[in-house]
Amino acid sequence: MKIQLALDRMEIEEAIQLTRLVESSIDWIEVGTSLIKEYGVSSINELKKAFPKKVIVADIKTIDNARYEFEMCFNAGADVATVMGVSPLVTIATCLEVARRFNKKVMIDLLNSSEEQKRALLKYSDVIFCDHVSKDEQEESGSRNPGTSGGGLYEDDSLQIAVAGGITLESFVNLKQKMNPTVAIIGSAITKAEDPAATAAKFKQMIFQMKGV
Amino acid sequence: MKIQLALDRMEIEEAIQLTRLVESSIDWIEVGTSLIKEYGVSSINELKKAFPKKVIVADIKTIDNARYEFEMCFNAGADVATVMGVSPLVTIATCLEVARRFNKKVMIDLLNSSEEQKRALLKYSDVIFCDHVSKDEQEESGSRNPGTSGGGLYEDDSLQIAVAGGITLESFVNLKQKMNPTVAIIGSAITKAEDPAATAAKFKQMIFQMKGV
Repeated sequence: MKIQLALDRMEIEEAIQLTRLVESSIDWIEVGTSLIKEYGVSSINELKKAFPKKVIVADIKTIDNARYEFEMCFNAGADVATVMGVSPLVTIATCLEVARRFNKKVMIDLLNSSEEQKRALLKYSDVIFCDHVSKDEQEESGSRNPGTSGGGLYEDDSLQIAVAGGITLESFVNLKQKMNPTVAIIGSAITKAEDPAATAAKFKQMIFQMKGV
Repeated sequence: MKIQLALDRMEIEEAIQLTRLVESSIDWIEVGTSLIKEYGVSSINELKKAFPKKVIVADIKTIDNARYEFEMCFNAGADVATVMGVSPLVTIATCLEVARRFNKKVMIDLLNSSEEQKRALLKYSDVIFCDHVSKDEQEESGSRNPGTSGGGLYEDDSLQIAVAGGITLESFVNLKQKMNPTVAIIGSAITKAEDPAATAAKFKQMIFQMKGV
């Protein structure tokens, strides 16, 4: 299982400094939607320049204009870019076409996708499906947990799945045992921790220990 | 009927120069999603600074992180900001709350929203509903035209509706007569015209002439 560090609601320089602190414990670096919308594509450029050996995920959340946005992300150094599962299918197909051309990867964000949409998307291989409980849903009381999204996502062992939304050290064991995702996307549990380096190291250690589970 | 000029796939300076050419014929200025994602929130700032008396629409296409994104847009000078109709309802409710606090307006982009989602959204008053055929759908042959989106959108005369997606001088009369939207969102028909000023003036003249229809 990989750890994807989600960087959101901060300045680019702060994102770089924070990532340096936890670099050895995390695998992928997510340039969060808020960084892209606030600072533009240079946020992707800067993070790739600072961490050229890490996988950079551009959380661009494309829902239209797929070719333009995906080319922009990959040209800026992203290795993975995100498209919304609620997009028209032609948009998702275009993202896949651009990613193939650049030899890069697509993550399909299933935030608020219907079960019907999910089933239609499961035909795509070589993508990462992101089971995503949004920030706004997390802030609303009574919101669902990741892993309860349905649509047959967890019935096919061959799928690559990322899980995002409010993952903490406490919920992490359960996540690993129940869903065993390819990628765990962790944001504020690390970025807002009193000691981000120690917290990221704990996540990494838990993955190591759980390998025998 | 207002004309909203959609500025997409260009640099900020080019957007400002182009808008100057057509300023007297258009009503609202849309800072397109591609400008925001490429150059960040400064694209909104720059356009508002250049055209302080125009209504600035930030096509931020929020689908999560509503408070952060909408506050960012309004603080940058936007008068209207967009949220996706396919978002969780809590996201849309949060956008409305922020807009009320700033005394600004929400445009709900109905791109790929289901009829069920549209019906749930029609309860909101004082928003603008955008009937939107996406760029990617336009490029796909056989895509639908605006105005065929269903969901009861055109059955309630009290709703404020914007129509977007491939509007041309040729399709404009039909649009006015069939849908009579509050806002016609026009992009490349003006921005890619050989003579943008003359073309924008033609749109304006057509609105004037059609008032008697």
